[in-house]
Amino acid sequence: MSVKKVHHIAIAVPDMETALHFWCDTLGLDLSHTEEVPSQKAIVAFLPAGESEIELVQPTQEDTGTARFIQERGGGIHHICLEVDDLASSLVDLKAKGVRLINEAPVLLEGRKMAFVHPKSAGGVLIELYEVTD
Amino acid sequence: MSVKKVHHIAIAVPDMETALHFWCDTLGLDLSHTEEVPSQKAIVAFLPAGESEIELVQPTQEDTGTARFIQERGGGIHHICLEVDDLASSLVDLKAKGVRLINEAPVLLEGRKMAFVHPKSAGGVLIELYEVTD
Repeated sequence: MSVKKVHHIAIAVPDMETALHFWCDTLGLDLSHTEEVPSQKAIVAFLPAGESEIELVQPTQEDTGTARFIQERGGGIHHICLEVDDLASSLVDLKAKGVRLINEAPVLLEGRKMAFVHPKSAGGVLIELYEVTD
Repeated sequence: MSVKKVHHIAIAVPDMETALHFWCDTLGLDLSHTEEVPSQKAIVAFLPAGESEIELVQPTQEDTGTARFIQERGGGIHHICLEVDDLASSLVDLKAKGVRLINEAPVLLEGRKMAFVHPKSAGGVLIELYEVTD
């Protein structure tokens, strides 16, 4: 498999207004757009930073991984997302190497093709793998 | 202030050999080089990913923030580093906006100019700001 770039860094935030004030007004990042992502039960703000993005994720329900992360830690870096060329074959490759996957096949969500590697196999890092499907 | 890109994502690792096996042999990232950074009391492995880098940081002593992070969490994403144009003026700007800084002036280390923002001011995210000084 081949990693092309850091696609995004996802940051769990308890309050989007406070987070946008810090990341945009204070740090000076631009806000591309904010959208509700029903499949993730979250509102997500997309802030480009070079070829990557900072994604601020505010859960809209209590039963998600991001919501539990905020309950436990009060917010912070939730996961990193790496863009790969061919997600399906990457997942086959990782599974053959004994890597524990949260999604063993690509998940299609709003035009995205993604899968998560389990942090138990990645030294405590939650890694999303992403393939551009345009 | 103006953020140019994600310079690196720093991942605290208790054992570099295990971490390199996962990030390079399994995930397929290239290892640029590994070096001991005495000022950080750490061994750091640099893995380019597009215009950014994944930096694996293994502490060499027990009295560092990264070592304590590993003791508490067993490893994981430690901080993100954003490249800015003018670090000194960015820090003046952030302080004027009431942001708590770990380093109120740029720190010069091995040809790098950097400073950390306190996670208390950044929603639990440890942010390094970095200026290229070439």
